[in-house]
Parts: sequence; C-alpha cells; structure tokens
Amino acid sequence: MKVLFVAVDDFEDLELFYPYFRLKEEEYEVLVASDRKGHIKGKHGYPITIDVKFDEVDIEKFDALVIPGGKSPERVRLNDAAVEICRNMFLSGKPVASICHGAQVLISAQVLEGRTGTCVASIKDDLINAGAEYRDQEVVVDGNWVSSRHPGDLHAWMREFLKLLKKTG
Amino acid sequence: MKVLFVAVDDFEDLELFYPYFRLKEEEYEVLVASDRKGHIKGKHGYPITIDVKFDEVDIEKFDALVIPGGKSPERVRLNDAAVEICRNMFLSGKPVASICHGAQVLISAQVLEGRTGTCVASIKDDLINAGAEYRDQEVVVDGNWVSSRHPGDLHAWMREFLKLLKKTG
Repeated sequence: MKVLFVAVDDFEDLELFYPYFRLKEEEYEVLVASDRKGHIKGKHGYPITIDVKFDEVDIEKFDALVIPGGKSPERVRLNDAAVEICRNMFLSGKPVASICHGAQVLISAQVLEGRTGTCVASIKDDLINAGAEYRDQEVVVDGNWVSSRHPGDLHAWMREFLKLLKKTG
Repeated sequence: MKVLFVAVDDFEDLELFYPYFRLKEEEYEVLVASDRKGHIKGKHGYPITIDVKFDEVDIEKFDALVIPGGKSPERVRLNDAAVEICRNMFLSGKPVASICHGAQVLISAQVLEGRTGTCVASIKDDLINAGAEYRDQEVVVDGNWVSSRHPGDLHAWMREFLKLLKKTG
C-alpha cells in the first residue's frame, strides 16, 4: 500500500507527522509531494524531505491520499497539478484523508457536492458553499473520504482512515 | 489501561504527541504529569494540559509509562518525585517507553544496570556508564523497556510499545 501526502511550506506539523509515522507504523509506503524538491517546513519548524514534485506524480502508483492542514492547503489549491491529483484520486474512489484546512484543496477540486464531512470551523461556510454537508464531530467517514477538524482529532482521524485502508487494501 | 507521561517545558513535541494520540487511538487513557498544573510547552511551541503534579501521582493507578525526550528529561531528573515515579514503575515491571533524551531520567532512577536499550547518540556514553548495553537501532525491546533514538523512530517505537501493552494488558 502506497500513500501520497500533498503539502507545501507552513503545513500543520502534527497533522502531517502523525499520519506519516502512523502509516509507517503499519508498514505502508509513504511519499510526500510538493511544489519543489528538497525540504519543506511546518508552521512549527519541523522539516520534511519531498519525494516527488506535484507535476511528476503518477497517481496510478498510489492507493490513498492524505491532505494535512495548516497554511499549506491555501497554497496547494493554487497549484493545478496538485488539485488534479486530489481530484483524480478522490473521484477514483481511493481513500482520501483531510484534516483542518486540508478540505480547501477538495473544495477547489470540485468533488464535495453532495458529500458529508468536516473541517476547521473557520472554513465550514466554504465547505457548505461547495455543496457538502458539514458535521461538527471529531471524524466523519463518507465513503472514501475521512475528514477531521483539527490536531485534537488526530487519534480518531487515523483510527477511521486505517480501518478504511485495511478494508480496501 | 491507563498510561502516564512525564514531561516539563521544552519536551520534544512529536515525541510527546505521537505516543499521546497513538495511545488515545487505541482507547487507552492518557495522563500527563509535570512539575506544575496548567500547561507546559514543547520546544516547537505546542502546549499540553497537565493532568497531575509529579508529587500527586499515585503510581498504583497507572499501567505504563512514557518518557518523551527534548530538553525536558534533564529537568525531570532533578525532580525527586518524578524520578521516584519512573524508578517504581520501571522496577515493578510495568511497560516503560523512553525516546531520545528520555533515558536520562532512567539513568538518574538507577534502573539501567544490566539492561539493553537505546537513546540519542549524544548521551550514549551516559547510558553505558549507567551500566546499560547501548544499541544503535530504531527500537530496542528489553523486557518491560522499549527505547528509541529520535523522532525518526516514532513508528517503530510505538509499534513495539503497543505490542507489549497488548501482551501485558
């Protein structure tokens, strides 16, 4: 099982590193895509090495997607290749985990019409305007989409995402 | 299953929060002990609420112990009540997880004579001088003690610690 993360600078550190190590704990292969090679840094200063540039991702090679939050998603959504990755993986039915501001990328990918999920409260109006039903709960599972609100939900988010990966994998 | 964390300010954020959420994911109860009530902060600025002061911990109520690293352990080892908690839990055979500088507390607790484990490279001479055998590997399991070197080992550290908790729990 190969899982792709999409992030740029100023990601929310725990929202990237908790799922990153959690998936490694299950012996899944984890790769991070970004707008450049080298390193990016989280809001709290943790660096992570980039494995692949957005425009070089072959989505056929990945089984699932993780979109961490922070200030990263507002920049990821401006990158056409990144949005296309998320759109294709979401619509192909592969498991997608978003948390906090991560949902902004899915809004721009125009895949949320008629779907149910959650995000950080400050963008809930945007989620609703994109056609989604918003729930204020620690984790929402709607088919292939597993969403949470903020770092305090990390345990619930990954508990449900791993259940889904094991079911589909 | 009730798990106690010992930490003060300037703990290594991922080394506290990864096991914290990981154990919550398994529905274990997690409590953080420190030298004061209120909040403490990690080196990278993440705050955590303190549940109990070191001198108010009733170790009979806890089944396992986690000692995160960072700059926290060098101050924890100066607190007699904290060292006594770690000494008692270690010697009673309850599962103990340490990472990075976390081993400094176990050195001061004088429990490492004849034991095998790991820690961050910069304190390996201290681990050896305390009578332990040092291994340079991502995780070492020696009876009730599960140790790792640094944040890059988090996945291996918790994989082994959870195996031990499930076996003993």
